[in-house]
Amino acid sequence: MNAPCVILVRPQLAENIGKTARAMLNFALDDLRLVAPRDGWPNPDAGPAGIGADRVIAAARVFATLEEAIADLHVVYAATVRPRGMLKPVVTAAAFAQEARHATNQGSRVGVLFGPERAGLENDDVALADKVLTVPVNPECSSMNLAQAVNIAAYEWFKAGDDTPALQFMGGYQGPAPKADLLGLFQHLEAELDARSYYFPPARAATMRRNLRNIIERAALSLPEVMTLRGVIKTLAQRPVRDDDGKS
Amino acid sequence: MNAPCVILVRPQLAENIGKTARAMLNFALDDLRLVAPRDGWPNPDAGPAGIGADRVIAAARVFATLEEAIADLHVVYAATVRPRGMLKPVVTAAAFAQEARHATNQGSRVGVLFGPERAGLENDDVALADKVLTVPVNPECSSMNLAQAVNIAAYEWFKAGDDTPALQFMGGYQGPAPKADLLGLFQHLEAELDARSYYFPPARAATMRRNLRNIIERAALSLPEVMTLRGVIKTLAQRPVRDDDGKS
Repeated sequence: MNAPCVILVRPQLAENIGKTARAMLNFALDDLRLVAPRDGWPNPDAGPAGIGADRVIAAARVFATLEEAIADLHVVYAATVRPRGMLKPVVTAAAFAQEARHATNQGSRVGVLFGPERAGLENDDVALADKVLTVPVNPECSSMNLAQAVNIAAYEWFKAGDDTPALQFMGGYQGPAPKADLLGLFQHLEAELDARSYYFPPARAATMRRNLRNIIERAALSLPEVMTLRGVIKTLAQRPVRDDDGKS
Repeated sequence: MNAPCVILVRPQLAENIGKTARAMLNFALDDLRLVAPRDGWPNPDAGPAGIGADRVIAAARVFATLEEAIADLHVVYAATVRPRGMLKPVVTAAAFAQEARHATNQGSRVGVLFGPERAGLENDDVALADKVLTVPVNPECSSMNLAQAVNIAAYEWFKAGDDTPALQFMGGYQGPAPKADLLGLFQHLEAELDARSYYFPPARAATMRRNLRNIIERAALSLPEVMTLRGVIKTLAQRPVRDDDGKS
């Protein structure tokens, strides 16, 4: 496991360290480093940070200086939204993720620096980084919460190695029903409607039939759902066992 | 402005509502709806949520039921990580963002449901949604903080309409220096090195020169940076004004 580490530089609130740990674990990062945390470390205000994140917190390492925290790394990104008049390449979180996947696959160790809550990273911190990582953000509200910024970078890292299809079906969907069963549903519905003179005027019957078939096709029904709808049609076609005011 | 709204269904902690508002504003969303918030609304624990998010909090609307909260919408996504045995299309956060951009461009109003912190959305909530929005997440730690989940969806929405280049230069970088100036730097450096017999043995001189040129080329120096390095070379080529133990 050679995933990027997260380095919080002079973090102020232990609560944010806890939320950072949880966001990291959500996206399969577990190497958390703290440079000179303001309120000391360990700090009970950091937890409970959610199931499992306790082990990220317990394994967090504290360093006196940023130089010590990055000594074993090969590529360092500085997460900051503010240009500082320094000539440094700036990449989006998504581009960082692609680069970091490539670098770690080559055996390099990657880290991302996040600055303190109020002021962000100092110029001297950024000067130790290879590149700046910036999250595209609303220019009218560009100040992100520390844990939320970590969340985005960690999310992009995870997403870059994830193969979840953009669209899938939840639950036990086994794909659409055989067309024979779908056609059976069409015929059942159309026969019951026809018996009640639904298709009127006759000149519109073909269009009316196509419209209903299109609605049903669009739902990509599974076989159990076809059966459910046939039960609904059968029930609707029966005489009510109770009238409208509830008497049977 | 027709950006998606965020609907928190039975949220428990006002602090998470405040952090949600800030994440929304970071990514240019401002329509926040609360369905039956557990601790009532407004709630002082929600703020301060960060600069500007106060107006999202102040404009948040409270609804007694989810049905009322979604009545004016056309497309609804349910954010949940857990499949529930319901046959419903599931999209990633990135796919949601693409679809929502298209739908809102067509004039549709889009909303995303997020469930309460402990239990998430109920099946009856999910049944009111068109699709499920799922964030690809570490299967060993799949429970996301509420505000972090909103953060990811809002980020993807913003990113889908954002044209920040994947790589750029920060600060006042005006592009690389004219090659004439870069060649001047090479000649200056090589002349000073040659005067000190650096290029030895002679058979390796061409390779040594190329290696140094490649290092310098790779930095894509701006014109001011070329001038800075010429100053460094000039300084290094001078006799020290002080010796090593500080006497002048």
